[in-house]
Amino acid sequence: MKNNHEKIDLPVAQVRRYLEPGPIVLVSSASQGARNIMTMGWHTVMEFAPSLIGCVIASGSHSFAMIRASGECVINLPTAALVDAVVEIGNTSGDSVDKFGRFGLTAAPADRIAAPLIRECHANFECRLHDGALIDKYNFFIFEVVKAHVAPVPKHPETLHYTGDGVFMVSGKIISRRGKSKSEML
Amino acid sequence: MKNNHEKIDLPVAQVRRYLEPGPIVLVSSASQGARNIMTMGWHTVMEFAPSLIGCVIASGSHSFAMIRASGECVINLPTAALVDAVVEIGNTSGDSVDKFGRFGLTAAPADRIAAPLIRECHANFECRLHDGALIDKYNFFIFEVVKAHVAPVPKHPETLHYTGDGVFMVSGKIISRRGKSKSEML
Repeated sequence: MKNNHEKIDLPVAQVRRYLEPGPIVLVSSASQGARNIMTMGWHTVMEFAPSLIGCVIASGSHSFAMIRASGECVINLPTAALVDAVVEIGNTSGDSVDKFGRFGLTAAPADRIAAPLIRECHANFECRLHDGALIDKYNFFIFEVVKAHVAPVPKHPETLHYTGDGVFMVSGKIISRRGKSKSEML
Repeated sequence: MKNNHEKIDLPVAQVRRYLEPGPIVLVSSASQGARNIMTMGWHTVMEFAPSLIGCVIASGSHSFAMIRASGECVINLPTAALVDAVVEIGNTSGDSVDKFGRFGLTAAPADRIAAPLIRECHANFECRLHDGALIDKYNFFIFEVVKAHVAPVPKHPETLHYTGDGVFMVSGKIISRRGKSKSEML
């Protein structure tokens, strides 16, 4: 689980750089003295400014209640080194165990919200609920990223992408078509 | 652009296997005798059954008008071999050119909708608009996948994952934690 834990600020409009490729993420939350972590694979960028992320959080989960009550969470980006923690976090309910202690993860204070960052992750995106109109119908939350922290290296971390059935794809090679891309696509 | 173009049916509840990892996709549409293709990176799985996909389609685009008018589209999964077509499609507006002809792509008839499949893609997901409540506010469409076609091999195609700035990540190695994953995560 070696990683670069020193983070720098990322402009929130650039969060898409890490989330648009579709990695599995760890969502940390806090409410009334308790804290929790869940895995999440169903999310999408929705806007650059404000920096909006839409995601589905299962309504039966411990995290759902905490995030709905607090209106906050942190979206944390784990690397492939954390795959076993990611799986175990997905297997475990937060109503019976403190997942930070159980899986050797460090809760670090956020700047703008009360929910904790997961220090061992490559990036941490502090989120506030922006629009809850589709929560009841689809468990769909629209968050605004209000502060973003990323490790400066590596530039392209090995991320985990879930295909279902217990199988992950790990991010591979990088190819650039920058010279061929028109600005509005950048 | 060599690929396996013979497709088999995929149960629509299993579409997450291809979309949850976060690939860039090509969205094909048709309306009033015209057809178009756009690139899309902002999408998420929202439900297994019905098979729901949420996605953002820029309101100024030619595709936005066609998809809103027809209430239909096809989400097509290109492989890394199609990267240059993906970039060029993103660079080009469909009001001035037929992108199928321009980029050497084959429009194949869909089973359940009028919009065409892109034959050269690894998978094709026929979609009908399920909920347009967030279109005006966020350009966010919720589609139901009503029919899914996939090439049977390779099992894990090389997909493209956009990081912005003209740079793509290509899907890499596969790691399984199937034995360690509880059924509800599968």
